[in-house]
Amino acid sequence: MKNWTFTDPWQQLEDKKMILVEEAEKIILNHTKDFDSEDIPLLDSIGRILAEDLIADRDLPPFNRATVDGIAISFKDYLDGIRKFKIKGVQAAGQTPINIDSKGQCIEIMTGAAVNKNLDTVIRYEDLIIQNGQAIVQEVPIQKNQNIHPQGSDKIKGEILVKKDDIITPTISGVSASIGKVKIKVKKLPRILIITTGDELVPMDSNPTDYQIRQSNAINIQAVLKKYKIQAHAMHLNDNREMIETKLKSNLQHYDVILLTGAVSMGKFDYIPEVLKNLNVQKFFHKVKQRPGKPFWFGKSQESTLIFAFPGNPVSAFLCLHRYFIPWLEASLNLIPQVEFAKLSTELNFKPELQYFAQVKLMVNQNAELIASTINTNGSGDYSHLPDTNAFIELPWNKTKFSKGECYRIWRYNN
Amino acid sequence: MKNWTFTDPWQQLEDKKMILVEEAEKIILNHTKDFDSEDIPLLDSIGRILAEDLIADRDLPPFNRATVDGIAISFKDYLDGIRKFKIKGVQAAGQTPINIDSKGQCIEIMTGAAVNKNLDTVIRYEDLIIQNGQAIVQEVPIQKNQNIHPQGSDKIKGEILVKKDDIITPTISGVSASIGKVKIKVKKLPRILIITTGDELVPMDSNPTDYQIRQSNAINIQAVLKKYKIQAHAMHLNDNREMIETKLKSNLQHYDVILLTGAVSMGKFDYIPEVLKNLNVQKFFHKVKQRPGKPFWFGKSQESTLIFAFPGNPVSAFLCLHRYFIPWLEASLNLIPQVEFAKLSTELNFKPELQYFAQVKLMVNQNAELIASTINTNGSGDYSHLPDTNAFIELPWNKTKFSKGECYRIWRYNN
Repeated sequence: MKNWTFTDPWQQLEDKKMILVEEAEKIILNHTKDFDSEDIPLLDSIGRILAEDLIADRDLPPFNRATVDGIAISFKDYLDGIRKFKIKGVQAAGQTPINIDSKGQCIEIMTGAAVNKNLDTVIRYEDLIIQNGQAIVQEVPIQKNQNIHPQGSDKIKGEILVKKDDIITPTISGVSASIGKVKIKVKKLPRILIITTGDELVPMDSNPTDYQIRQSNAINIQAVLKKYKIQAHAMHLNDNREMIETKLKSNLQHYDVILLTGAVSMGKFDYIPEVLKNLNVQKFFHKVKQRPGKPFWFGKSQESTLIFAFPGNPVSAFLCLHRYFIPWLEASLNLIPQVEFAKLSTELNFKPELQYFAQVKLMVNQNAELIASTINTNGSGDYSHLPDTNAFIELPWNKTKFSKGECYRIWRYNN
Repeated sequence: MKNWTFTDPWQQLEDKKMILVEEAEKIILNHTKDFDSEDIPLLDSIGRILAEDLIADRDLPPFNRATVDGIAISFKDYLDGIRKFKIKGVQAAGQTPINIDSKGQCIEIMTGAAVNKNLDTVIRYEDLIIQNGQAIVQEVPIQKNQNIHPQGSDKIKGEILVKKDDIITPTISGVSASIGKVKIKVKKLPRILIITTGDELVPMDSNPTDYQIRQSNAINIQAVLKKYKIQAHAMHLNDNREMIETKLKSNLQHYDVILLTGAVSMGKFDYIPEVLKNLNVQKFFHKVKQRPGKPFWFGKSQESTLIFAFPGNPVSAFLCLHRYFIPWLEASLNLIPQVEFAKLSTELNFKPELQYFAQVKLMVNQNAELIASTINTNGSGDYSHLPDTNAFIELPWNKTKFSKGECYRIWRYNN
């Protein structure tokens, strides 16, 4: 038995073993995977990641397009002093463009219709008087090319409309429809298994004893992954070493990623690190200099399945999910990370030498500042304030005082 | 025939008839509806609007909860100088809490376990040496109640965990699971029909002629509504007055809202206002002092079906959807509006006396400022830049110059 001479020797030893948040992040982002792509119906693609550039199949607009309802004329006629134009015909949107036959004629034309190549100016009804088959131009300034949205002025045929590696939004689906892409190439999604552990946890539809609580980590994580259209599987295991080992072993080959919660700390029944070692899962790190989520374990199996083993406390698991797994997922899907900073609305003190992730409520004020308001919580076991907040603000481990008005990086959730 | 003496008389007359954006908004928000509520499975509820408060079914935490792995002691024993505690038993999370029998005993206890009411202090393994059935406390400061998350300290039984009238997020679903609510009360959703019009528009899976374009408004609007879990129906009608009247008439009674696009301006085939009048739909306004989307028409049928008739240009329809329909929807579902402002990254000039909605790309910088970068577009028919941007910034009609650094309200999309 060793003889300790320092006040808190275990803490010092533990601190030495722990890696920094940035180091953990770097290791994880070194293990991104490419999941290839697949073609799916456009109507099912919202929220998936676009895996091909969307290319204009013709010029946008495809023709010189009238932007108002009125008449199309040749500007030369106007220059020559003509103010009263004979209406040769009416052209609706979608119709083949009509030309004039002679000087002083015009075509009554509707918004969205193709202006004939020989006509170059459109005058809106508001600037006309129409009577007896003639359009009389009022005394308003008329300019050549006015009220025409020229062919190819938005994009030309072959140009990229939407770059790949972006989340498919409503407007991207609209653009895809406009070029007739009813099937669209998207990134395939990783197969993910969530394994929650803990003898104290019972299913949400059962009645816990006085000393048990209902499971919420799996539904929470599944809901977050649904945003990415990932349908993660989930199972719960009690703190039984053999069962955990058997179930992990049989599932390693079926999933790209296994997200574990619980049983990674110092408890007598925290079997995860030992079981993973038995299964020859390579450990990249265990414990990160952070709160919450210090006991976070990360490694890779021989089948290349990545194991994110989060602590079981709901806030710890939630932080690790957003700070580590989601960036891994987005990087694996080629998404560019969104880096955002928010301004503290009040002073905050945190003494431990750990990177501190405080739960905050974000709002944008009239000066366009993203303000982070902190709330009082009771640590990583207190999940009751997660619904009131929408981001973690990341406060450096080597500072203890964080002043009002200082800006720090945020990690959004509930969005 | 009148004799015009002003340079732009029609414009002046038209301006008088047009209402301001704020007036249009106010009228629309005076017609919100309550769609009642329904109970649905928790697992299907993400994105729906919570219609009941979620109440703690017991204290949170439900017991004095150990927050670390270690031993539970009576602090009085520690005060009395005891540093070597005999381990009476091991208590896992979920088990009935074990009491000590006599002075100087301790219980080895795991994170998440219930601390017996007669014990009041937990010492973590890192501060102990365990040998020969005894736990020896190292020379570290020990405080009464340390490492215990007290019963009811987060919330007490009967307290509100989540207030109603909020979008159900992953964390709300987690909280709901924790109180055993596997069915949850949510707001019912309006029945919505999207009718797009225009002879120039062909289905997205067909080949347009040189003067036609493919439909994209319906898929765009449907995708936006999916965020609210609304499955809107959609149909396309050609510019045929009888057909439009027949179809509108037969559908008025089946929907709470009909969103129309196209045929509301001054064109010869812009039948919508006339048809709506024939169907005795009450008009609240037609034309708003804004760009894009000036010809926007709003009214209510005798069956109380609300009619939002948007202009057909994709950007106009998209702006009207986000500026008018979404606020109506959110107000009808009791959601509190999120009011956000962004700072212009460059100067912008806009001369017409119209409220101008510019497409911008938002980003948050290191000073926590929400910066809006404008882009060059070719007006409301140019939908090619919508995917590159994610908000409209609303610029007042009575100004023409908008300086870099000024803050204005934004309306997000693509999020």
